[in-house]
Amino acid sequence: MLFREALGEVLRETRLAKGMTLRQASKKGCMALGYLSEIERGQKELSSEPLRSLAYGLGIPAHELVFKTGLRMAGLDVPDTAEVLVERIEEYADLVPQN
Amino acid sequence: MLFREALGEVLRETRLAKGMTLRQASKKGCMALGYLSEIERGQKELSSEPLRSLAYGLGIPAHELVFKTGLRMAGLDVPDTAEVLVERIEEYADLVPQN
Repeated sequence: MLFREALGEVLRETRLAKGMTLRQASKKGCMALGYLSEIERGQKELSSEPLRSLAYGLGIPAHELVFKTGLRMAGLDVPDTAEVLVERIEEYADLVPQN
Repeated sequence: MLFREALGEVLRETRLAKGMTLRQASKKGCMALGYLSEIERGQKELSSEPLRSLAYGLGIPAHELVFKTGLRMAGLDVPDTAEVLVERIEEYADLVPQN
């Protein structure tokens, strides 16, 4: 799974979990609605500044979006809570080759 | 810290940990040397396909690069081993607001 595809999924799930419409997220994230829609479908690349702006609009740290995108690229579900996050990362650790 | 800045640092550290020169990494990652240099310095955005190609050239899964970039954006050191990764993620979990 490509980075932009995983990021799009994570963004969409984050937005829905916050109960926001595309229109609300595009307004809060200072991003055109059509562009956000393409981003969520993994059709457009998202540069660093709009990524930060969008994360701010969604009320989530940008690093958390990126972190979760890495998990998604690895084929792991994106956890909602920190507790589950630790479990997932332990699964992830199993996937990482030991030195 | 912006995504491209954190990604650049992680890429550079990964390359150096593998003992590769810029020239070797650019050749293996199918990327122009000057462009890779700018990427590592956080001056250029990296699209999803060249990210995948570069990760392959460095011998590291793309999701691991992204995952570590998220850690770096959060201000955490990027661990070398899976064991340390779990410790770091537990630190990370402390940073994530509980539901």
